Amino acid sequence: MTTTINKLNSVDIEAVGQLAGAIQADPSVAGTIWKSTVDWKGGFRSEAKSRDFAPVPSDEPVALGGDDTAPNPVEQLLGALGNCLAVGYAANATAAGIELQSLRIELEGDLDLHTFLGLADGHAGYETIQARVSIESEASADEINELHRKVVATSPVGHTLQRAIPVSVDLG
Amino acid sequence: MTTTINKLNSVDIEAVGQLAGAIQADPSVAGTIWKSTVDWKGGFRSEAKSRDFAPVPSDEPVALGGDDTAPNPVEQLLGALGNCLAVGYAANATAAGIELQSLRIELEGDLDLHTFLGLADGHAGYETIQARVSIESEASADEINELHRKVVATSPVGHTLQRAIPVSVDLG
Repeated sequence: MTTTINKLNSVDIEAVGQLAGAIQADPSVAGTIWKSTVDWKGGFRSEAKSRDFAPVPSDEPVALGGDDTAPNPVEQLLGALGNCLAVGYAANATAAGIELQSLRIELEGDLDLHTFLGLADGHAGYETIQARVSIESEASADEINELHRKVVATSPVGHTLQRAIPVSVDLG
Repeated sequence: MTTTINKLNSVDIEAVGQLAGAIQADPSVAGTIWKSTVDWKGGFRSEAKSRDFAPVPSDEPVALGGDDTAPNPVEQLLGALGNCLAVGYAANATAAGIELQSLRIELEGDLDLHTFLGLADGHAGYETIQARVSIESEASADEINELHRKVVATSPVGHTLQRAIPVSVDLG
């Protein structure tokens, strides 16, 4: 006999609930450390590896001196934000009993190259980042707005970008 | 007859110089816009696509309710930082005539899950991020230290993380 488990949005919300319960029993469980190791491959090519997953390639466009073989780091940053928001919508929708038919997030950011190229001092990074979220669901507008509010209030990558984070870069 | 062009560190530093020249002639050329589109794939799986490159998959560990098929968004963020720093070392080393034998960047960040899981208000993102850089090169310690100084002063992803960036997330 086969047991079929239908999970709303294919999300294992029980696992999330178990983790929340474990943290309530022992708050230190919430302290997590995440890692990535980047190896330079020549030119502007490199690879980022986390845990046992296949390394993810990175490069720069030809106009920036690269070989244009992969998304570049500032595009990867936007992707990380979009993927983080997607988890947030899927998690909070499932917890609220909202079924999502589809979810797409289009991100863009504007960046002035003067500092990166050594032509000026100052801010080398994004000036602003915009994410436009398209959700297909039969939930009401009020439900979707409340879902959206929760996602924005709890996004790890979103909050990392919106706050000044201490970043240390040290020669080892 | 075959012409062999040996590029230091395999970096096309002429392309970088041409872009810098074009920006000095017309500063508006420095204003760039970068994009990524994220599509939700069910569960906590999604894919981020930039330009014509293959979509890059994202997931969450099982303990966080995912299927653990790919690095998660906060790992991707560290990878983007490491890849960006790698470009910076390769570019500035090449401009300075420094040959790099190898370059590895190990990154980690610590993150408290309370806010992400809705157990507390506040900061859902990284508390701090550390990058440890290992460089193999015959350049002097002074040269490597000056290289390092320039990279940290000009990193687009590094600066984006170290400053509070306006991030708008809107339902489309």
